[in-house]
Amino acid sequence: MRWNLSPQDLPTAWFNVVPHLPAPLEPPLHPGTKEPVGPEDLAPLFPMALIAQEVSTEPAVDIPGPVLDVLSLWRPTPLVRATRLEQALGTPARIYYKDESVSPAGSHKPNTAVPQAYFNKAEGVPRLTTETGAGQWGSALAFASSVFGLDCMVYMVRASFEQKPYRRMLMETWGARVAPSPVDDAAHPGSLGTAISDAVRDAAGREDSHYSLGSVLNHVLLHQTIIGLEAKQQLQLAGERLPDVVIGSCGGGSNLGGISLPFVPDEGVRLVAVEPASCPTLTAGRFEYDFGDTAGLTPLLPMYTLGHEFIPPPIHAGGLRYHGDSPIISALVKSGRMEAVAYPQSKVFEAGVQFARTQGSVPAPETAHAIRCVVDEALAAKEKGEERVILFNYSGHGLLDLSAYDDYLHDRLAD
Amino acid sequence: MRWNLSPQDLPTAWFNVVPHLPAPLEPPLHPGTKEPVGPEDLAPLFPMALIAQEVSTEPAVDIPGPVLDVLSLWRPTPLVRATRLEQALGTPARIYYKDESVSPAGSHKPNTAVPQAYFNKAEGVPRLTTETGAGQWGSALAFASSVFGLDCMVYMVRASFEQKPYRRMLMETWGARVAPSPVDDAAHPGSLGTAISDAVRDAAGREDSHYSLGSVLNHVLLHQTIIGLEAKQQLQLAGERLPDVVIGSCGGGSNLGGISLPFVPDEGVRLVAVEPASCPTLTAGRFEYDFGDTAGLTPLLPMYTLGHEFIPPPIHAGGLRYHGDSPIISALVKSGRMEAVAYPQSKVFEAGVQFARTQGSVPAPETAHAIRCVVDEALAAKEKGEERVILFNYSGHGLLDLSAYDDYLHDRLAD
Repeated sequence: MRWNLSPQDLPTAWFNVVPHLPAPLEPPLHPGTKEPVGPEDLAPLFPMALIAQEVSTEPAVDIPGPVLDVLSLWRPTPLVRATRLEQALGTPARIYYKDESVSPAGSHKPNTAVPQAYFNKAEGVPRLTTETGAGQWGSALAFASSVFGLDCMVYMVRASFEQKPYRRMLMETWGARVAPSPVDDAAHPGSLGTAISDAVRDAAGREDSHYSLGSVLNHVLLHQTIIGLEAKQQLQLAGERLPDVVIGSCGGGSNLGGISLPFVPDEGVRLVAVEPASCPTLTAGRFEYDFGDTAGLTPLLPMYTLGHEFIPPPIHAGGLRYHGDSPIISALVKSGRMEAVAYPQSKVFEAGVQFARTQGSVPAPETAHAIRCVVDEALAAKEKGEERVILFNYSGHGLLDLSAYDDYLHDRLAD
Repeated sequence: MRWNLSPQDLPTAWFNVVPHLPAPLEPPLHPGTKEPVGPEDLAPLFPMALIAQEVSTEPAVDIPGPVLDVLSLWRPTPLVRATRLEQALGTPARIYYKDESVSPAGSHKPNTAVPQAYFNKAEGVPRLTTETGAGQWGSALAFASSVFGLDCMVYMVRASFEQKPYRRMLMETWGARVAPSPVDDAAHPGSLGTAISDAVRDAAGREDSHYSLGSVLNHVLLHQTIIGLEAKQQLQLAGERLPDVVIGSCGGGSNLGGISLPFVPDEGVRLVAVEPASCPTLTAGRFEYDFGDTAGLTPLLPMYTLGHEFIPPPIHAGGLRYHGDSPIISALVKSGRMEAVAYPQSKVFEAGVQFARTQGSVPAPETAHAIRCVVDEALAAKEKGEERVILFNYSGHGLLDLSAYDDYLHDRLAD
């Protein structure tokens, strides 16, 4: 069962969680002076509109018309009840998901790529740079740049550039340029950290360029709240009460924030972050100021971190391989408003395959982390004989990640 | 702009074009006796329900409830107006498309895979065999078999099996077994013809197995008419009159038939088949009885054909590389009710990239054939200063065909 909204029902303002946080966010610090950064520090990299959103404490931020026009190419996304999965589990729980896989890039990432491209365009910036790991974020920004006529330069982790050519091809089809990172060492496999450093250096060194980030920052999570806002409308349409639990996978925090932040003020609603056991930022990291990248070029952010030099093992959910976390998500976990759990990837792919064989769609490995937790919540509800309303974010499809399923099905997966 | 129907608006009967054809269809002939085949000839391969649909002259055929339940996982599919493409072309034409790429397998193919799996299951058949070229059809049947708990054995053209592992992985994720064809010659690259022969031989040789075909036959096109039936409802929702022209790409004829057959009785509506210049069945073939496969195991069908031994060049639109055509489509073209045009693939990919950069989604190479024709129709409307309502079938996305775009963008594409 699915509940569609029409394009006229698209939310016209993003939800800002900042006024609802248990305590004010601590500010980002300048990497050199260790003083709080100001707008002038960020202006070489970001347009003023995004800098203002980054520090906004208004409860809502209007979505510009041209952004709504582009989002309506695929939004509102469907809310789906996973009745076949429920039946397979024999659970009394009702499982709903927001299907963010229907975007052109196949994930939730365009929700922020589109406004980021728009606000840069509106301030006269003709070129964007960014990093990408496996390619989800890079392809979203390539798409958004194509729509607004911007040049887009993507630095892609070299190991992925060489092993996963489809994402590179997708970015090029939308007109982006893609280079393997690090750019100055062809023998280095690269990491998200090196790619961020390459992209920031490029943008900082050119008058015509800004930098764009696909997760972690406040304005990114703000743009993603359109997911949870739509879900609230759709649950009402479905005749449903507030969910008992809202679940999302967490790398930097953008898909999790997108679905969960609008539920922060609803006190009875549990919020759950799901991360890989091999990169357990929220469940085993320390809350402290740390850099966003390996080279230490970014501001210091107050967040759960495994240390900016931590190199996660090469698990298949590339989008979850990040040493830190969004400051907003970190604050919610630190205060106890949000829970966090970690799973090894074999248990994750087991759930992903079960989803594919019941509901049809093959989830991205990142999304399969959320599904693992959903299955466990549904089985716990069965155990206790409880009705339980579960909402999760189907953040992306796995069609360009099938080699991960191949490894799982042929017993080549290491936890 | 998009128009969604709710699952309750799903058509409950398929549209049978046979009573609306200009002349009765000529019957398939037995490959040995050259006499018309009867149900008993087909029973080793197909369930009785599908054999009855194959020869039905009723104007409508009810869709069973369990089939509707599964189709509603992704249907009704959206009708989308391609306003950004219209603007880029500066055309007064209004361009609408049915987005069949939203199915779990990413194309229109599950529309017939689901009922085929269901009718076999209902008659107690536990195992299906089929062939696949690039993998679209095989993955659709793997998905449908997974939903109904059937075993599924797919014979995949060996060249694709080796060069395009993602489709094989997708089929295996849904639990199917996949073998390269021909099974008895590991040095042979294979073709759709050899794969059909392998799949038919397998099913004919086992009590527990039936064979399943993804295009060409009457019952396959019948199942696909749900596309055009939904489109008619949605055009009304959009406040639109009947389209001036309905366009689909044509290999065996299933996606084209799906969108166009419900418009056959609407006399003012032009119907257009788009095929590759390198496999020009309708535009350069002969109308005659021919085999469906290379080995001559299938019944003889009355159709446009390039000869069953014709091996099309290895163009990227694998789904359009078929020597023959659906008898229904052939009859419509022969009578003049349907037009046919052919394009070289460089012109096709040019249109595919233009679509991706305006509307966002990257079309399958098969679908890009239809888009090439849509663009030319829209430009002709501009030339003549005519409003023109164009409807086409967005039969699938190109996310597993990106290497074709890579070849186009890097000038490695041969026409």
